[in-house]
Amino acid sequence: MSGTLYGVGLGPGDPDLMTVKAQRLISGAAVIAYPTLAGAESFARSIASGVIPEGAREIVMDVPMSVERGPAQAAYDAGAAQIAEALEGESDVVCLCEGDPFFYGSFMYLYARLSGRFACEVVPGVTSMTACAAVAGLPLAARNEAVTVVPGTLAEAELARRVESSETAVIMKVGRHLEKIRRVLALAGRAEGAVYVERASLGAERVMPLSEAPEEAPYFSMILAVKGDDPWL
Amino acid sequence: MSGTLYGVGLGPGDPDLMTVKAQRLISGAAVIAYPTLAGAESFARSIASGVIPEGAREIVMDVPMSVERGPAQAAYDAGAAQIAEALEGESDVVCLCEGDPFFYGSFMYLYARLSGRFACEVVPGVTSMTACAAVAGLPLAARNEAVTVVPGTLAEAELARRVESSETAVIMKVGRHLEKIRRVLALAGRAEGAVYVERASLGAERVMPLSEAPEEAPYFSMILAVKGDDPWL
Ligand SMILES: C[S@@+](CC[C@H](N)C(=O)[O-])C[C@H]1O[C@@H](n2cnc3c(N)ncnc32)[C@H](O)[C@@H]1O
Ligand SMILES: C[S@@+](CC[C@H](N)C(=O)[O-])C[C@H]1O[C@@H](n2cnc3c(N)ncnc32)[C@H](O)[C@@H]1O
Repeated sequence: MSGTLYGVGLGPGDPDLMTVKAQRLISGAAVIAYPTLAGAESFARSIASGVIPEGAREIVMDVPMSVERGPAQAAYDAGAAQIAEALEGESDVVCLCEGDPFFYGSFMYLYARLSGRFACEVVPGVTSMTACAAVAGLPLAARNEAVTVVPGTLAEAELARRVESSETAVIMKVGRHLEKIRRVLALAGRAEGAVYVERASLGAERVMPLSEAPEEAPYFSMILAVKGDDPWL
Repeated sequence: MSGTLYGVGLGPGDPDLMTVKAQRLISGAAVIAYPTLAGAESFARSIASGVIPEGAREIVMDVPMSVERGPAQAAYDAGAAQIAEALEGESDVVCLCEGDPFFYGSFMYLYARLSGRFACEVVPGVTSMTACAAVAGLPLAARNEAVTVVPGTLAEAELARRVESSETAVIMKVGRHLEKIRRVLALAGRAEGAVYVERASLGAERVMPLSEAPEEAPYFSMILAVKGDDPWL
């Protein structure tokens, strides 16, 4: 009997926004796994740190920063091989994922490599999207409204096309794409009322109108542009 | 000092998918509030039932089924008035919301009525969207992909326009709209691979290809159509 691979969502940062199930799985884990980006500290590990048992084995996948896909693929291949070995040794493996594992999460790369061979359970988590909406005081959608989620990394024309087709636009992965996103929203007449949220649910959280957003946005930031004219209000 | 209004997300159904914060707030609540639809049992209350303290006061807003907006508005007005009275009496009020309060949740109607006058905190929850993705084994998006969330209640042409503009389409509120949604996905070449999920994370959960979905879909069902051809896999 091989072990089970758990992909566990940890929510947006505040450990209290972990689910009861996530806390239970992590606090009982003998082996945990998580990726780091180019050697940086793991945000996922920091969210879970209060419940990781002492002595748990940690499988760390260091994913290099690179536009080519080869190096990242190799990092996930190597991580998957280590995880497979642990699973074959009859140990469960709990993979830590910020937010939700299947919402722009790198867990999908492990899932793709391992779910055919091993029992695998994905434990959903609170996404940064709804955490940002909560702190911004912006209901994302009601009734007949649509929500479009786009990464700010898209090319300008692509971004514009997608923002125009929806009542609510959620723009993830802001970082150095802030100026481009500003232009797209302004052209679409959606800059007014748009809100910039940085590090939602963490001590360093910041929420402000897009017009006041800092020149340098960190990776953990998001922009919400909500039309919101629900007639039931 | 008035009390604080908490809008608390409960996740998709499994009580273990509540956040630690939601559990703590509910188990310490003197007053809870939730809507019911046309007298039906409250799904939100059933998720939280294991942690609602004995003797807590329950403010129930019964929202009538109606296409006109007047009756629903009146129900939220009356509920908001009762909640306001409790808050003025210096009691906190914990409003129970299935999934996330700001993701197609009716809590926004209370938020709109009360957040100007009272301290208000929204506690995000796991949405049914990522819970369905988890049980379907379908990563929603990675890297440069966009996700569009649409209610199946939209008119057919509207639905088609929005489904076409995105790598991943999440269609909520299926119910009696299933046939229309099928046609739209088939025309867009997106029916193959689409997955139907009913009551994710609950005992009665069902997951199957859209082609095998039942004729009569319940309200608590969703369809996921994911392109997913990420090069890092
Ligand atoms: C690779 S995605 C991971 C998303 C995650 N799986 C989720 O469900 O939220 C990283 C992006 O999520 C957003 N993000 C994650 N945590 C955040 C937070 N606490 N506040 C604001 N944005 C956040 C940022 O847009 C960031 O660029
Ligand atoms: C009014 S919306 C509420 C959504 C909720 N606030 C959330 O964050 O998931 C109701 C719709 O959510 C979806 N839904 C809610 N719970 C679900 C579940 N456990 N399984 C499948 N779909 C669900 C269905 O599409 C349903 O029609």
